[in-house]
Amino acid sequence: MLEYQAILDEILHEITPYLGEGRVASYIPELARVEPSSFAMSLMCVDGREFHVGAYEKRFSIQSISKLFTLTLAMQLANDSLWERIGKEPSGTPFNSLVQLEYEHGIPRNPFINAGALVVTDVILSHLQDAHQSVLEFIRTLCAKDDINFDFSVAKSEAQTGFRNHAMANFLKSFNNLEHEPSRVLNAYFHHCSIAMNTQELAKSALFLANGGIQHWSNTPILNARQTKRINALMLTCGTYDSVGDFRVGLPAKSGVGGGILATLPGKFSLCVWSPRLNEKGNSFAGTKALELFTTKTKLSIF
Amino acid sequence: MLEYQAILDEILHEITPYLGEGRVASYIPELARVEPSSFAMSLMCVDGREFHVGAYEKRFSIQSISKLFTLTLAMQLANDSLWERIGKEPSGTPFNSLVQLEYEHGIPRNPFINAGALVVTDVILSHLQDAHQSVLEFIRTLCAKDDINFDFSVAKSEAQTGFRNHAMANFLKSFNNLEHEPSRVLNAYFHHCSIAMNTQELAKSALFLANGGIQHWSNTPILNARQTKRINALMLTCGTYDSVGDFRVGLPAKSGVGGGILATLPGKFSLCVWSPRLNEKGNSFAGTKALELFTTKTKLSIF
Amino acid sequence: MLEYQAILDEILHEITPYLGEGRVASYIPELARVEPSSFAMSLMCVDGREFHVGAYEKRFSIQSISKLFTLTLAMQLANDSLWERIGKEPSGTPFNSLVQLEYEHGIPRNPFINAGALVVTDVILSHLQDAHQSVLEFIRTLCAKDDINFDFSVAKSEAQTGFRNHAMANFLKSFNNLEHEPSRVLNAYFHHCSIAMNTQELAKSALFLANGGIQHWSNTPILNARQTKRINALMLTCGTYDSVGDFRVGLPAKSGVGGGILATLPGKFSLCVWSPRLNEKGNSFAGTKALELFTTKTKLSIF
Amino acid sequence: MLEYQAILDEILHEITPYLGEGRVASYIPELARVEPSSFAMSLMCVDGREFHVGAYEKRFSIQSISKLFTLTLAMQLANDSLWERIGKEPSGTPFNSLVQLEYEHGIPRNPFINAGALVVTDVILSHLQDAHQSVLEFIRTLCAKDDINFDFSVAKSEAQTGFRNHAMANFLKSFNNLEHEPSRVLNAYFHHCSIAMNTQELAKSALFLANGGIQHWSNTPILNARQTKRINALMLTCGTYDSVGDFRVGLPAKSGVGGGILATLPGKFSLCVWSPRLNEKGNSFAGTKALELFTTKTKLSIF
Repeated sequence: MLEYQAILDEILHEITPYLGEGRVASYIPELARVEPSSFAMSLMCVDGREFHVGAYEKRFSIQSISKLFTLTLAMQLANDSLWERIGKEPSGTPFNSLVQLEYEHGIPRNPFINAGALVVTDVILSHLQDAHQSVLEFIRTLCAKDDINFDFSVAKSEAQTGFRNHAMANFLKSFNNLEHEPSRVLNAYFHHCSIAMNTQELAKSALFLANGGIQHWSNTPILNARQTKRINALMLTCGTYDSVGDFRVGLPAKSGVGGGILATLPGKFSLCVWSPRLNEKGNSFAGTKALELFTTKTKLSIF
Repeated sequence: MLEYQAILDEILHEITPYLGEGRVASYIPELARVEPSSFAMSLMCVDGREFHVGAYEKRFSIQSISKLFTLTLAMQLANDSLWERIGKEPSGTPFNSLVQLEYEHGIPRNPFINAGALVVTDVILSHLQDAHQSVLEFIRTLCAKDDINFDFSVAKSEAQTGFRNHAMANFLKSFNNLEHEPSRVLNAYFHHCSIAMNTQELAKSALFLANGGIQHWSNTPILNARQTKRINALMLTCGTYDSVGDFRVGLPAKSGVGGGILATLPGKFSLCVWSPRLNEKGNSFAGTKALELFTTKTKLSIF
Repeated sequence: MLEYQAILDEILHEITPYLGEGRVASYIPELARVEPSSFAMSLMCVDGREFHVGAYEKRFSIQSISKLFTLTLAMQLANDSLWERIGKEPSGTPFNSLVQLEYEHGIPRNPFINAGALVVTDVILSHLQDAHQSVLEFIRTLCAKDDINFDFSVAKSEAQTGFRNHAMANFLKSFNNLEHEPSRVLNAYFHHCSIAMNTQELAKSALFLANGGIQHWSNTPILNARQTKRINALMLTCGTYDSVGDFRVGLPAKSGVGGGILATLPGKFSLCVWSPRLNEKGNSFAGTKALELFTTKTKLSIF
Repeated sequence: MLEYQAILDEILHEITPYLGEGRVASYIPELARVEPSSFAMSLMCVDGREFHVGAYEKRFSIQSISKLFTLTLAMQLANDSLWERIGKEPSGTPFNSLVQLEYEHGIPRNPFINAGALVVTDVILSHLQDAHQSVLEFIRTLCAKDDINFDFSVAKSEAQTGFRNHAMANFLKSFNNLEHEPSRVLNAYFHHCSIAMNTQELAKSALFLANGGIQHWSNTPILNARQTKRINALMLTCGTYDSVGDFRVGLPAKSGVGGGILATLPGKFSLCVWSPRLNEKGNSFAGTKALELFTTKTKLSIF
């Protein structure tokens, strides 16, 4: 049996020299207010064991990792009808591009680019009155923590400066691919991105993806096996911005500009890493390296 | 000397069978409330003569023809600095496309596509507190008519449904090519488009473009000769949406979805035609035909 | 232990009603000369067992599956320097698009789109005088069959009608991303695509991808572990044309318009299916269905 | 009456300090073998007068100016059926882009971008066995000079290095918008571009465009009035690469990378200028300046 704790400790040791590389996202001042050289890593196994290293109790802005949870909720609510409004293909273009959206008449390529996540949010709004709170409650349930919350200053800051996202929501609406007012969808979206969680909570929340859709500790089905496979496949092909091919980890993963990356190995574990400095593709610099070290040391990956 | 009145009468006669062809713009209900088979044509010569036919006293929504007047005003206010923020080239893409804007980093191709007109409006806002009223007063002065006004229901309707324009303004802002809030720029823009004028007033307002920049009846310079030449050139290459090459009139012209087309022959005249039904490119069906008849009959064109 | 033979037999039974759906590729007459409702499936396990069903000894045109073998050979020859000239990302555009190539200055998105495979062929030409024969010999070695050969009529037919590929090769050359004359690269490329093999031979040839890069029956290393992981990842993200997300098999796979699909499950097996009728994305209709049935019945996939 | 000779002399004087600016086209060695600071200008009036300055008897490679003559010949041969295979709109993209061609399914935007000129050449080939010679004879007739000829070394050099053009011809063929083999069309096209003429000959050849389609000195109709207007309009909107809006001359014009620019003022004159150094848009640096000086000094332009 692999000595996971020893491996995580080794990774922390080996990663330390790299913690100064990359740049913290600064397009909103609130994101820049984090300790830039932070590092944390949490591993949750389907057999119940868990292992942690670094600042794993320190919460950070989950940002685009929230797209994983809103997608899960929308799949519960709308199932396959979701895919009439969003594609399942890698986009081959930057996560915030409007070009493909115009050529493809308002159907976002996948639910992990911003346009796709806005449609996902719109779907949630069609089923649940209060999308803000519903998503928050859903995440609280996934990790069994009542005090997870929005960072309202982050949400407000994004609402005020996120002109590209405002453009995208209005563009989607012009193609009739939003049912609600763009401003309402954006408001929900920015709040979801602002949620603060730590690596332990994120790994716990996503463990069902490694467990055939079943929440391990409660035995509750979150999604069925086919849906779960779908999300893992989407994470692998679309989860790490426009650098899926350079992301040599070999695990389904979803990253966020807050520096978090959440990965799974179906049948085995979920794994979350956090370090705020980003590489030029917008993924955590040390986080990416740590995941590579993990799969190299354990020889565990899907390939 | 050409018998202009006889020619206009002939055109009206010949155009009548075509007045049922094409479709009135209906994306906002207010635009659809016009008598669809209306027709009017006004010719103003630089020597002071004027000729009219049809409903030339009936006002209609000038829509994109307003871009001609806001551009003129912005050139007065900002002169060449304007061209650091807007190009002077034909776009080769639909007037409301966001694709080129993304590839060209937020610099609209020319001032007659919507994105360009939004930047023009933003420039006016930087020089004049009340862009709404300033543009209205400017147009009133150009044609010496005090009662020209906005159609507030048209402006409001566009503000509520013009999601593509909202997308565009926010996109421009994301590239730092708007100084003001997108909503404020859009508000002014929608009001300018809603202005109601008749063909006589429009032809009179644009006569300076055929007269080296000088307002004929008042001898007031509106623009200098170089600026005037620039606008005529832009009308020719970019004035009739994405059908410059099919627009076989051979005159600089600017059209609007309200069914108006305003044309000039430098050194000779300005010419305005109106008929609400549009061809598939968004230019007045009968209006385009009438202009072709005019240049064929008079053998007057720039080519 | 799974009863693989029983499962394959079941699949053949269940797939039979679908063998008339889809259309055989007909852009070259030679490809249309196949029995359209053929079906075959071969499974080779890393423990040496093999299972077959249908016409598994019938050879067909491997077409784009050849890209898998040329990539393997180029990685042996050039290793990481290959990635300076080809990307590793999904393209998000059709396999024969020139648009992305222009925007990205002649660097193909990945080695499985046509442009990428042409660069791969050019790399082989730089290392080996006779790329035709070298690739053929390499494949013969991989599956231990001396009589595998080109179908010269297919190769000739593609050379005469493949204008899009000619365009692409010249376009690559205009960006200096081919060292050799376009016609020479194309000639080699068309010959590689024309190679005829059966499912047994293909599954055997690719078994090293499921075995950490080691050819099972000879214990010869073909690629190292990192390279092998890379190819499996590329197959998963870029192997099935522009329908990676719809390809619900959950296995790394490479398809060809001859109707073959070659898949792997790292650590377990290689799997090849063949049926000539294609779905609208260009992947074998019955072949895709058969792979889905296989992963559903065995519950084996990477996700 | 304007003192044209004096004006040309003045222009030569004023332009001299600028003759060192810009860069001679060097993508083929043959084009670089010209005296880089050469300058010539020729004016031919519809009343028969002609005026010259500089090296107006020195021949240079007409390059893309040939597109004007092949278009004229194709319009004679095919008339309006031509426009089923080529558009009449400005492209908004570089003259050698393949992007728009892909999005618009192989229909080039206009006959002055390379793709359009290749289709024009194909049309000529469908009507005349020997397109090479036919175009040469046509030009010889237009300017009444028997010794105008190809520069075979230029043509050969372009054939060997013009990979982008090879890509384009094959791309057009893949959309079925070439009737002949790409290599045959290219061969004719490269020969047309290589023709060597001087400014006097070019101005004389194009004088019919200023004269309603009638060759002045022979009273022969070359094109009808509508066709002539069409070509002048195309020159204005599409004649100077992707810088129509920056080309402040206000005359229909066609430029070539050999440094020539051929312009017309309908009803008045044709005007040809030559100076080999190019600005960053690919138009003659001193030539553009000279044309601007001419229209400023004479106050003659179409606007």
